[in-house]
Amino acid sequence: MITIDQPSAMQAWSDAEHRRGRSVGLVPTMGFLHDGHLSLVEIARGRCDACVVSIFVNPLQFGAGEDLDRYPRDEAGDRAKLEAAGVDVLYMPAADAMYPDGFQTAVTVAEVTRGLCGDGRPTHFQGVTTVVAKLFNAVRPEVAVFGEKDYQQLATVRRMARDLDFGIDVVGGPIVRDADGLAMSSRNAYLSADERSAARVLSRSLAQARTVCADGERDAATLLSRVRAMVSAEPLVRLEYASVVDASTLRPVERVQSDALLALAAQVGKTRLIDNTLLTAA
Amino acid sequence: MITIDQPSAMQAWSDAEHRRGRSVGLVPTMGFLHDGHLSLVEIARGRCDACVVSIFVNPLQFGAGEDLDRYPRDEAGDRAKLEAAGVDVLYMPAADAMYPDGFQTAVTVAEVTRGLCGDGRPTHFQGVTTVVAKLFNAVRPEVAVFGEKDYQQLATVRRMARDLDFGIDVVGGPIVRDADGLAMSSRNAYLSADERSAARVLSRSLAQARTVCADGERDAATLLSRVRAMVSAEPLVRLEYASVVDASTLRPVERVQSDALLALAAQVGKTRLIDNTLLTAA
Repeated sequence: MITIDQPSAMQAWSDAEHRRGRSVGLVPTMGFLHDGHLSLVEIARGRCDACVVSIFVNPLQFGAGEDLDRYPRDEAGDRAKLEAAGVDVLYMPAADAMYPDGFQTAVTVAEVTRGLCGDGRPTHFQGVTTVVAKLFNAVRPEVAVFGEKDYQQLATVRRMARDLDFGIDVVGGPIVRDADGLAMSSRNAYLSADERSAARVLSRSLAQARTVCADGERDAATLLSRVRAMVSAEPLVRLEYASVVDASTLRPVERVQSDALLALAAQVGKTRLIDNTLLTAA
Repeated sequence: MITIDQPSAMQAWSDAEHRRGRSVGLVPTMGFLHDGHLSLVEIARGRCDACVVSIFVNPLQFGAGEDLDRYPRDEAGDRAKLEAAGVDVLYMPAADAMYPDGFQTAVTVAEVTRGLCGDGRPTHFQGVTTVVAKLFNAVRPEVAVFGEKDYQQLATVRRMARDLDFGIDVVGGPIVRDADGLAMSSRNAYLSADERSAARVLSRSLAQARTVCADGERDAATLLSRVRAMVSAEPLVRLEYASVVDASTLRPVERVQSDALLALAAQVGKTRLIDNTLLTAA
């Protein structure tokens, strides 16, 4: 595995791959890698000849008072995992190379970024789309893989790629959960033992909703009231939102009629976690 | 010359060129081509192995009440000129292919789009950067050439290309003028004979300012008052703005100390024209 830290060098590497007729897959990450990330690497490797993983803790997607300064890092551990996973290139640009003095360009996606996490994090998705556009331009991949845990991010990037004619296939990778059901996230490292135990209520509440929906309950308000009731029984967990939305547009729906998404965000102590599940009206 | 109307087909063509080791140059236009456009084609052909010209009258960059509906078109004439100029591909996407239902992404550049034309056309440059990002992604050129008559557009696209790591060299082509000094523009076709004659005052006022500056006058207000006096003597011409700005940042300057730009916009009858000149403190 080689490490590249400049966009121009990244482009030169990808261009050389393309001239040899090899396709390139990209997995963008903020590092502190877990099995969720590695499952995305596996998808990218299965679809492309070469695999690039980027690690960049992107200041633009953190709001004021969020955890930019304490976001967990483990460069040595990340490198070892990526080597073992057969990654070809680690793309790790420096913050001052990404946003030098005079930087003034933004990429915004409108409708899909409203609601859900867009309400509590009003500048977040503009930070995501701006950095992902930069990563797409530097890596020039055929395929880019994003985790479905960050479902709104996946929908937003997919919309951006289509709208701006990137010609990149944006692929979602299924949520990977720990044995206790908690969706894997670098931010799980923030949790104390008690918080970790309490946080399991999030995936439990989603699983319950999925079961109830499969048993015939299609009313969104009813499904959400059951989620809220279950979560409110955990004093360490404060629900930020729980919504049933159309899985494509992310607009709220009143009834589960075709593919719908039940998504939630919660504060567990000082840690903000998100999770979601698809609900299918079979 | 072949014609391509879909982004994916355009990408496939460019990718094949790149695999053959050939570089691609792009000249984005809105058609109704004149010698100014053809001078940009010549620059692109001189720098790249293959040359793509796009023709797309981009609705996003026209404001309410502007001339989108009457913008001049001459597809047959444009094709003949591009064939004769040795262009390889005419990329001519349809508006509904560029902005299908659900389109919701924008690219914005902040500081450089303020002032000058950005004041009178507040949504214009967002329309430009959004469509140019799409053209860059579809054509995947090494070099893109823009005319210096639209100086603020050139500065904005250059900033976008750098900020988003496009890896594309954005090149400016010098203003091409008719024998009477008027900067070539597709919109000159709107002018009546009287308006056309009156419009010559724009380039004359810039030439006078350049001479006065070369003779030692470095005070922006003085230079501008002479431009305004000359233009106001033409009853058919109404100056929208005239400004002396730093040629890189486009922020107003009080004195011409290094490279400065004198830019103006004017209404000539119902036609809006722009022109500019560099002022150099030698």
